[in-house]
Amino acid sequence: MSVTAPTGFSAAGIACGIKDGDRPDLALVATHDHRPVAAAGVFTSNKMTAAPVVVSRRHLAATGGRAAAVVLNSGNANAATGEQGLADADEMCALTADALGVHPTEVLVCSTGLIGFALPMDALRAGIPRVADALAPDGGLDAATAIMTTDTVEKVATAVRKLPDGSVFTVGGIAKGAAMLEPDMATMLAVCTTDAAVEPAELHAALERAVSGTFNTLTVDGAQSTNDTVLVLAGGAAGPVPGELFVDALTEVCRSLAVQMADDAEGSTKTVFLRVRGAATDAEAARAARDTANCQLVKCSWYGEDPYWGRIASEMGAAGVTFDPATLTIAYGDHVVYRHGEPVPVGSGPGLLDAGALADYMTRRHLHLTVDLGQGEGEALIITTDLTHAYIDENMRTS
Amino acid sequence: MSVTAPTGFSAAGIACGIKDGDRPDLALVATHDHRPVAAAGVFTSNKMTAAPVVVSRRHLAATGGRAAAVVLNSGNANAATGEQGLADADEMCALTADALGVHPTEVLVCSTGLIGFALPMDALRAGIPRVADALAPDGGLDAATAIMTTDTVEKVATAVRKLPDGSVFTVGGIAKGAAMLEPDMATMLAVCTTDAAVEPAELHAALERAVSGTFNTLTVDGAQSTNDTVLVLAGGAAGPVPGELFVDALTEVCRSLAVQMADDAEGSTKTVFLRVRGAATDAEAARAARDTANCQLVKCSWYGEDPYWGRIASEMGAAGVTFDPATLTIAYGDHVVYRHGEPVPVGSGPGLLDAGALADYMTRRHLHLTVDLGQGEGEALIITTDLTHAYIDENMRTS
Repeated sequence: MSVTAPTGFSAAGIACGIKDGDRPDLALVATHDHRPVAAAGVFTSNKMTAAPVVVSRRHLAATGGRAAAVVLNSGNANAATGEQGLADADEMCALTADALGVHPTEVLVCSTGLIGFALPMDALRAGIPRVADALAPDGGLDAATAIMTTDTVEKVATAVRKLPDGSVFTVGGIAKGAAMLEPDMATMLAVCTTDAAVEPAELHAALERAVSGTFNTLTVDGAQSTNDTVLVLAGGAAGPVPGELFVDALTEVCRSLAVQMADDAEGSTKTVFLRVRGAATDAEAARAARDTANCQLVKCSWYGEDPYWGRIASEMGAAGVTFDPATLTIAYGDHVVYRHGEPVPVGSGPGLLDAGALADYMTRRHLHLTVDLGQGEGEALIITTDLTHAYIDENMRTS
Repeated sequence: MSVTAPTGFSAAGIACGIKDGDRPDLALVATHDHRPVAAAGVFTSNKMTAAPVVVSRRHLAATGGRAAAVVLNSGNANAATGEQGLADADEMCALTADALGVHPTEVLVCSTGLIGFALPMDALRAGIPRVADALAPDGGLDAATAIMTTDTVEKVATAVRKLPDGSVFTVGGIAKGAAMLEPDMATMLAVCTTDAAVEPAELHAALERAVSGTFNTLTVDGAQSTNDTVLVLAGGAAGPVPGELFVDALTEVCRSLAVQMADDAEGSTKTVFLRVRGAATDAEAARAARDTANCQLVKCSWYGEDPYWGRIASEMGAAGVTFDPATLTIAYGDHVVYRHGEPVPVGSGPGLLDAGALADYMTRRHLHLTVDLGQGEGEALIITTDLTHAYIDENMRTS
C-alpha cells in the first residue's frame, strides 16, 4: 500500500533518536534497484525556506528531474538554521547516497518539526545506514509513521487505473501534516510514487495540476510553512500511460491525503468544506473562501456548533471581493439561513428555517457550507477546520 | 471626564432591555444645548456594512458634517438585517431627534453586538426618550458603560492642551471593542468630543490622521467588523486652536483608547507591540507585522510564554514582502534570539542569549517584539494580543 503499492519501490521507517522515547522519526523511500527515475517536486513559496527545500530544489535542477530516493525526518524542521542547516541537509543526502550507492544529487530530502534548532547529526549518521538496510517492498506504512509530528494517524493513499489493454498502473502516496496547513501549500510533506512511465517535464506539470485542486484548497490556520514539499517519483515499470489518466490518479491520491490531513488537523473537531459560488471570478471566490476559512471567529463558531452566519457574512464583506449584501445567500448543508440579503425567518414550512434540523446538522463531523455571492460565475472550494481548545494546547508551547 | 470633559457636551447611559438582566445597553452623547456642531466620522471598509453605518454616513453627507447627537446601542449590531435594519436605524435617529428637538439628519447612530438579528424596536422606542432625559454634564462614564459588549471595563480618555494665551481646550472619548479588532478599523465604536472650534473638513482630516496611527495599528483576530465607527464632534466653546495641536490631542485620546482595547481584548493575557523595521517600505513593514500578528500559531506561543521565534521568522518569510533570511534579526524585548540569519547561541556573556532572562521577560503582560528585515528603512508598529482558551470560550457560541 501507499508508496510501495506501485511496482519498483521500497520504503522504511525507523526511530533514530531525533525524537525522544524511541518514536519513529526517519523514513526512506527509494527505487527498488536504486536506479534514478523521473522525479518532480512542488515546494513552499515561503521565503524563509528551510534548508531541505533549498537542497531538494537544487538536486532536481542538477539532475533535470531524476531521483533514486527521498530521505525524510520528523522532529526537527531544519529551518532557520543558517549555513549549518544547509550543510546538514547536504550531509543527509550524502549519507543516503553512500548507503544506496547513488549520486548525492539523486537523493531528495524533507524535514518536519520544530523550527530553529540544528539537526542532531550524530543520530542521522547512525540512522541513515540503518533505514537503508530496512528498505522493504512493504515498508510504505512504516515510512508514513516515521514522518508524523503532531499527526495522530498515518496518512496513506493508493489509486489504481486500468489501461485499454487490460494492464494497470498505480499511484501511491504518504503524507504528514497536522498544523500550519495553508495553501501553497500546508505544513505538510507528501511523497508519491507511480509505476507509470512519465517524463520529468510531464511529471512536474501533472503534479502542479494535482496539487492545485487538492493540497492547495486546504487551510487550517493560515500559517504557511517553511518546509512544505510534495514529491513524486515515476519508476516506469508499468510503461507509458495516457496523460489525463495519470493526472486523474495522482489527483485522487493527493485529494485523499488532503482530506486525511484536515480530518487529523491539530485539535480539530470539524472538517468544513466551504464552497463560495456566484463570485465575479474564480480567484475572488477563492479569496473570499480562504479569508473566511482563516477567520478565528468563524472557526470558533464551528467548534461551538453555532450556525452564527453573521460572521460569515461579515468576512465575505471584508474579503475585498465584488460584493453586495442584497445578493448574498448562505446555507449550512441544505439549510438556507440568509437569502438575497435578508435573514430567513425561523419556522416550519417552505421558505422558513428549521432551527432544530439546523442544530442537528451542526453536530456533524463534516460540515458543508455554501455561500452564493450572486455576482457572477466564479466558484471555489476550501477545506478547513474549526479552532479548538486542543489546538491552543498543542501550540502554546513547543515542549 | 471622557466625552463630557470638553465644555458643551452631555451624555447618558441606561438599560433599555436590549440585553438581558438590566445591563446598560443604550447611550447618548449630545451637545449641551442640542445645537448641531461640526462632526466627522471614519467607518469600516467592510462591504457587509451595518445599517447604522449606512445611516450615519448619509446624515454626515446630508448636513455637510454637522451633528447634535450620537445615539448608540449595545447587544445588537443591526447588521445583515436587510431593509428592516435600515428602517430601524432611521427610526433610532428620528426618535432621538424628537426627544432633543433637532432634525433627524443631525443625529448619528452606532450599534454593536450580534450580527443578523432585528433590533428590538419596542425597547428602543421606550428607551430613547428616557436616555435623552438622563443626559447630564457628567454622564460620560455611564455612556461608556452602556456601549460595552464583551468588554470587561469601560474605555475612556481625555487630553487637555494649553494654548499660547493660557486658555485650554480638551478632547474626550469613549470606546468599546473587545474582539474583531482589526485595522480599518476594529470592531469598535468610539465617540470623541472637543470644545475646540474646528470646521468639518478640517475635523475629518484630523480624525483620519489620528485613526491611522492608533486604531488602525490594532489587530486582535484579523476579523474586520461590519460596524466599526469613530466619530468626533467639535463644539467650539474653547475657540479656534492650532491644527497640529488639535491633531496631537485627538491622537492621544485615540491611542489611549486603542491600548485600552488591546488590554481588554477577549480572553487576552498579553498585549504585544510588534515593531517591524528594516523593511523595503513602510507598507511592507505593516504587511509583515499584521500577517504575523494575526497568525494563530504565533498568538498561541505568546499565550504559552514560549519565545518560539521560528514561527515569527516563518511568517515574515510568508508575508510576501522583500525578504532574505540572511538579513533577518528578531528580538523579544532586549533579548536578540536570531541575528543576521543565524540563531543566537544560548549562554551567558556578550553576544549570547540569556535563556533565563528571556523566560522571565516572556511572563510580562506587555511584550515588545522587534523584527529587523535588514532590507531598507520601512517601519511599522502593530498592537495585538495572544490567542487563549478564554477567547475560544467567548466566541464558540453566541448565547
